[in-house]
Amino acid sequence: MKFKIKRQDLINSVNTVEKAVSIKSTINILEGIYIEAKNNEVTFIGNNLELCIICKIPAQVDLEGSLVVKANLFSSAVKKLPDFDEDVFIEIDENSNISLSCGNAKFNFSTASADEFPKPSISYENVKTLKIKENILKSMIRQTMYAVAQNDIKPYLSGLYFNLENKILDIVGCDSYRLAIRSEEVDSENISFILPGKTAKELCAVLGESEDEVYIKLSDKNAFIELNNCILITRLIDGNYLNYKSIAENESKLSIITETKSILDSVDRAALITSEATKAYIILDIENDYVFINCETVFGKVNDKLSVNMVGEPIKIAFNPRYLLEAFKNIDSQEIKIEFAGPRNPISIKPIEGKNFNSIVVPVKF
Amino acid sequence: MKFKIKRQDLINSVNTVEKAVSIKSTINILEGIYIEAKNNEVTFIGNNLELCIICKIPAQVDLEGSLVVKANLFSSAVKKLPDFDEDVFIEIDENSNISLSCGNAKFNFSTASADEFPKPSISYENVKTLKIKENILKSMIRQTMYAVAQNDIKPYLSGLYFNLENKILDIVGCDSYRLAIRSEEVDSENISFILPGKTAKELCAVLGESEDEVYIKLSDKNAFIELNNCILITRLIDGNYLNYKSIAENESKLSIITETKSILDSVDRAALITSEATKAYIILDIENDYVFINCETVFGKVNDKLSVNMVGEPIKIAFNPRYLLEAFKNIDSQEIKIEFAGPRNPISIKPIEGKNFNSIVVPVKF
Repeated sequence: MKFKIKRQDLINSVNTVEKAVSIKSTINILEGIYIEAKNNEVTFIGNNLELCIICKIPAQVDLEGSLVVKANLFSSAVKKLPDFDEDVFIEIDENSNISLSCGNAKFNFSTASADEFPKPSISYENVKTLKIKENILKSMIRQTMYAVAQNDIKPYLSGLYFNLENKILDIVGCDSYRLAIRSEEVDSENISFILPGKTAKELCAVLGESEDEVYIKLSDKNAFIELNNCILITRLIDGNYLNYKSIAENESKLSIITETKSILDSVDRAALITSEATKAYIILDIENDYVFINCETVFGKVNDKLSVNMVGEPIKIAFNPRYLLEAFKNIDSQEIKIEFAGPRNPISIKPIEGKNFNSIVVPVKF
Repeated sequence: MKFKIKRQDLINSVNTVEKAVSIKSTINILEGIYIEAKNNEVTFIGNNLELCIICKIPAQVDLEGSLVVKANLFSSAVKKLPDFDEDVFIEIDENSNISLSCGNAKFNFSTASADEFPKPSISYENVKTLKIKENILKSMIRQTMYAVAQNDIKPYLSGLYFNLENKILDIVGCDSYRLAIRSEEVDSENISFILPGKTAKELCAVLGESEDEVYIKLSDKNAFIELNNCILITRLIDGNYLNYKSIAENESKLSIITETKSILDSVDRAALITSEATKAYIILDIENDYVFINCETVFGKVNDKLSVNMVGEPIKIAFNPRYLLEAFKNIDSQEIKIEFAGPRNPISIKPIEGKNFNSIVVPVKF
């Protein structure tokens, strides 16, 4: 194997496929990056058996071949290459060591045989395709991912739900205590699937801010997510998702409008004394155009009040402050509207303009 | 106790004294901040028995008094105060709880009695004084602290040595493998002392970039470091420091001049494969206006070369790369001069201009 590749292409590819490499695995080969040079194209693959990422980059291939190199060393070496030269020369010697040269710097590492590496099979038979702009997909995942369950006995809650109906795509995260829905118009046919939470997180890290199209191709069991030169392959989560639309519908008896930063700061102050206390909650007492925020734990007491624009009946309601904070932090809007249906009913937090985000939070008993 | 204080003064004082508060101590009171209001001045003290920091701030005192408050909660509360109001009202209620009000936000915490808190005694009898500008002292400590021994059986090596002779102050850090000396002209009388490494680190964090004068007042056992409204009190380390000047003198057989960033990057690349290997070293082979950098461990091989300006005999010499990297990182100069006396002799790394910094590194056998 022998090829020449642009330094920046190499860095980008390794950064991307590395996200699917196992850091510690009982199967040693999964800690490696697969590299194949063929037909003036170099393929990099990381595969932890949950998620597989493939990047293909044009390169000047002088000798075809393939190998697996230890990901952590190779990736660190790639990032430390001298930045005054833009070409990197990679080749394998008679002892199966890979050498990586750029400028005056040269790294040599041992390699493993490419035969052992689990290469994914890609089959686009009977796939349905969802097409969406990269920056929009990134923001939709970012705004809903926080609500995905970390540990839940219901497997479907550990994933991010994609539901496309009548040209509206909803992406939904939920963990029994809160629910986040982000919606966008998308010109594809109806489709729905549950992407594993971990995959969603890595996908969000791989996605950039461009308006390039991302193609999500779905078979029964797997998603093949194509962007630029890369494909992410992941299993899908089986099962039906919950009926999130009915949860999001709630009769409103009170709505308040407030600056996102003000209420975020106030709840954050109250949360100070709850962080180490178990089952601590904060109480919102809303009346006369004020939200009174009160919290009391073994660590002390915090009181705050916030002037708001209020329409409806007064209410007194309690929350786990962390759930409110995460909802507020994920709204990209200077002002928000919060709707209350009663002290035992979930609240709905929305940006003041647009209908594309809704964050539902369940109150606690007090 | 009842007083009004500027929010920013409160934040600065708490940030500063907090650096001397024990995070976990068997003596509970040492996890607290002592607060005393008296004569329109508020005093904050943190004291972990190694280092004590006192800040005095003007305030409108309505009722005198003193107490101790848990540092972590109080400090977090102070940092979370609303930023639209600049006054903070602090008072103690009949249950000995402290309340902290700013804008609409109000925190309440329990307190402990001020009587239990170990207040330091300050005596300026028979002290010698060293006067130096804040920004200069900060840069001198920053540039030498890295070389102070972390774990050494010789107690004096765990401190930073201050030696003022004939209007030249040397600050020296040393750990048997390397030595850093930073010098400045200072208009004070001859003096020398060893400041504990931990104190030096906290002092560096407290010091700002102003040209205000810092007064270091020295008794036999203690240093009292006065800057602005604060005093740091620390014990000094007993014993004589080593004769650093003789170590720094070495006959030069070869000198090279190179860009700091280039050699730093090259050594950093070679160090990649040494981080997890034990007793790994890199070899510098200097000849024909090139430094050839070679490293080989079980993890692989790295080779690099660097064009330099060289005067003297060729040399082949090996180092622990970490010691070279830390020396290079602490030189504030685009170009450096490295002097070699032989493959077994320490090298000297200096900025190309000025004589105010010298970093000595001992080579390893190979």
